[in-house]
Amino acid sequence: MAVRIDTRYTERFVTKEQVSAMQPRIASAHEQLHSGTGLGNDFIGWLNLPTDYDKEEFARIKQAAAKIRSDSDVLVVIGIGGSYLGARAAIEYLKSPNYNLATNGGPQIFFSGCNISSDALNELFMLCEGKRVSVNMISKSGTTTEPAIAFRAFKKYMEERYGKDGARERIYCTTDRAKGTLKALATTEGYETFVVPDNVGGRFSVLTAVGLLPIAAAGVDIDKLMEGARLAQNELCDTDIEKNPCYKYAAVRNALYEAGFSTELLVSYEPAFQMMNEWWKQLYGESEGKDTKGIFPASAIFSTDLHSLGQYIQDGARILFETVCVFDQPKQQRVIEDDPANVDGLNFLTGMTMDEVNKKAFAGTVLAHVDGGVPNIALNIDTWSESDLGYLIYFFEKACAISGYVLGVNPFNQPGVEAYKKNMFALLGKPGYESQKAELEARLAE
Amino acid sequence: MAVRIDTRYTERFVTKEQVSAMQPRIASAHEQLHSGTGLGNDFIGWLNLPTDYDKEEFARIKQAAAKIRSDSDVLVVIGIGGSYLGARAAIEYLKSPNYNLATNGGPQIFFSGCNISSDALNELFMLCEGKRVSVNMISKSGTTTEPAIAFRAFKKYMEERYGKDGARERIYCTTDRAKGTLKALATTEGYETFVVPDNVGGRFSVLTAVGLLPIAAAGVDIDKLMEGARLAQNELCDTDIEKNPCYKYAAVRNALYEAGFSTELLVSYEPAFQMMNEWWKQLYGESEGKDTKGIFPASAIFSTDLHSLGQYIQDGARILFETVCVFDQPKQQRVIEDDPANVDGLNFLTGMTMDEVNKKAFAGTVLAHVDGGVPNIALNIDTWSESDLGYLIYFFEKACAISGYVLGVNPFNQPGVEAYKKNMFALLGKPGYESQKAELEARLAE
Repeated sequence: MAVRIDTRYTERFVTKEQVSAMQPRIASAHEQLHSGTGLGNDFIGWLNLPTDYDKEEFARIKQAAAKIRSDSDVLVVIGIGGSYLGARAAIEYLKSPNYNLATNGGPQIFFSGCNISSDALNELFMLCEGKRVSVNMISKSGTTTEPAIAFRAFKKYMEERYGKDGARERIYCTTDRAKGTLKALATTEGYETFVVPDNVGGRFSVLTAVGLLPIAAAGVDIDKLMEGARLAQNELCDTDIEKNPCYKYAAVRNALYEAGFSTELLVSYEPAFQMMNEWWKQLYGESEGKDTKGIFPASAIFSTDLHSLGQYIQDGARILFETVCVFDQPKQQRVIEDDPANVDGLNFLTGMTMDEVNKKAFAGTVLAHVDGGVPNIALNIDTWSESDLGYLIYFFEKACAISGYVLGVNPFNQPGVEAYKKNMFALLGKPGYESQKAELEARLAE
Repeated sequence: MAVRIDTRYTERFVTKEQVSAMQPRIASAHEQLHSGTGLGNDFIGWLNLPTDYDKEEFARIKQAAAKIRSDSDVLVVIGIGGSYLGARAAIEYLKSPNYNLATNGGPQIFFSGCNISSDALNELFMLCEGKRVSVNMISKSGTTTEPAIAFRAFKKYMEERYGKDGARERIYCTTDRAKGTLKALATTEGYETFVVPDNVGGRFSVLTAVGLLPIAAAGVDIDKLMEGARLAQNELCDTDIEKNPCYKYAAVRNALYEAGFSTELLVSYEPAFQMMNEWWKQLYGESEGKDTKGIFPASAIFSTDLHSLGQYIQDGARILFETVCVFDQPKQQRVIEDDPANVDGLNFLTGMTMDEVNKKAFAGTVLAHVDGGVPNIALNIDTWSESDLGYLIYFFEKACAISGYVLGVNPFNQPGVEAYKKNMFALLGKPGYESQKAELEARLAE
């Protein structure tokens, strides 16, 4: 298996019996998920996605990506939440957090429409100056405020710059298969479209066109990405938590939660993992954070954050547990060279690879944190390959669904996300929200 | 005052009486801090730093920055924790999160030595190819593992590329005034040095040479930055929490903590604030997270994270409160234009600035989250100017120190940071740690 789990460093905090007691609940969650009888069962399309996807569309995604790579210096991806986090995470993980500085042959990829910042949007137009631009608008409906504002501006920009016909060649819409304003617009304008499947929620959509088009545009082999996910789909089905690391992860984190650990810190020792942390935070926070329960998802990159959150983790309130993603190998090795003068006193490291030092930092940190009262789960991942990323994505998705069922929530809805939107629409005077406006304004004036 | 506070949306969760009860504790904390009689009183140099700093060195910082701007395309800043977070935060806040892509006339600035990633270091050397490079090594001692590894590699690179004499003109060391291996090396090699003051801890050091040299190299007017901090130093001394927003912040967040809210989420609606969140997390996490207590510091950028953590915040476990940094004005305005076809249904926004929409998102979110059971503090900040950033930095530093005293901890030490280092040194076979090595290896083999 490309992802393995080591839970030795949780045993001081939850007993083997407490974890074993999760076994029937995990088996029940598995049954609900695979039989499609659980809560939110109209959103489990991701479960069989690695085998059951639209092959014709997949080929079109690769063609569109090749076209973008040949005719564009910049790809602007417009989307919010699950419509950008997965793609951004995959690109930084497989290419680099400095992808836009270091890209060699592919377009720079900017993510827009995920905030309402005039500064960010103005700057993006500046960054497009003098460059050949394509746009990928990603929205199931087309009416989500943040991406819709950005797309309104970019559609105008593209038409002014390339003409209606030219813009048509450079705007790609990932949206509902049949309905919604974006689909209607794309049909009218003749934009190429890709599908946000009805049965896959945003935070589970990275292996649909939502994630795949930007990822492929960055030069990633998406066949291998899907291949890894397919391996995970096949391998992560055993209901025995001792044979299925994905289910063991769900079991142990729920046992820790029930033992009073409220917050999970996802950790990696590589900066390239940072956006994966962000993707994971949406996946877990949005799936579990409801009905006034759920593990709070936080994250860190070590060793840098050992000099930031490290003090708190070691000695602060005992509410944390850590899940550390450890890679067997980095992408590249680098040996620490000798300094005859040994000014820095580091010659005891001479000849070691940085990765050996990084691994000792990990081992030393685990022991220190466990001694300080912080349970640690390790997820051991083979490599940074496309295939292993596909595997890891599926691993996290499935563990999340199982966790949600064990927790007793619907892991596939997000009713709480509507609350701010309703208030915002009312305050902005959106038609249909008039009745709430006065009430909210009165509350703000109190 | 450049930073004001609005605590209306905490009143449903802590009574006015609970906050008033903090008043004598705040006054006592103020007395301890200003009289220098509190815990960690040998690390309160930051308190008077905006007036009491080395003017000669300040002038040299500006000269060095001007030289770097004239002779370098890349400045590599080597440091970890407080030796990079403040500078990086200030540059992204004042310039842009895309500073390295958008820089116009100044050097790209890369932060290194804050991890043990071979991939990150190898990539940085690639990003330096063909560019004129300067290096700023920041370490009080010179022996902190992460920056020392990076500096060993960069010193060799610079000497191979520029010769000993050329490298001397391009390497700047920010270190102890008199002692330590980096100071000794700099003296031997003839590097220009700047001082990490003895009485200012790393996380409070952004307004010393530690932060100021990289910030100035990015083209920031550091006189104005200090001017803002000076204003804050003068204005934020009243012990009455109703007259001092800095102390009110300390009072309310402690009252919320005592009422059971374990986690504070620092929030902004502008992506340029993201690294300020990270700087704040170190400042507060490392100052308060000890003796098995302290508020856990987390962060978010809205509205993007309303589509990620938003569900959890609205409906998850009720352990969170939010502190939202709201700017009266963005750096630039942008008006939402009309679309006669109104395909996206956004014409109700036509003619509004994006910032007006962003502000309504904020107002709507505050009401939604308060209704969901999440207390909200708002910090209102005038502008994105250098001066207002200086003010905000000092505001957060002083509120942190006061908070720590109210909590009953030493806000200026970080004993827990040593634990992982000791284990790592032992596992790596560092001379002097032999006795622990076998014991740790045995534990790992269990």
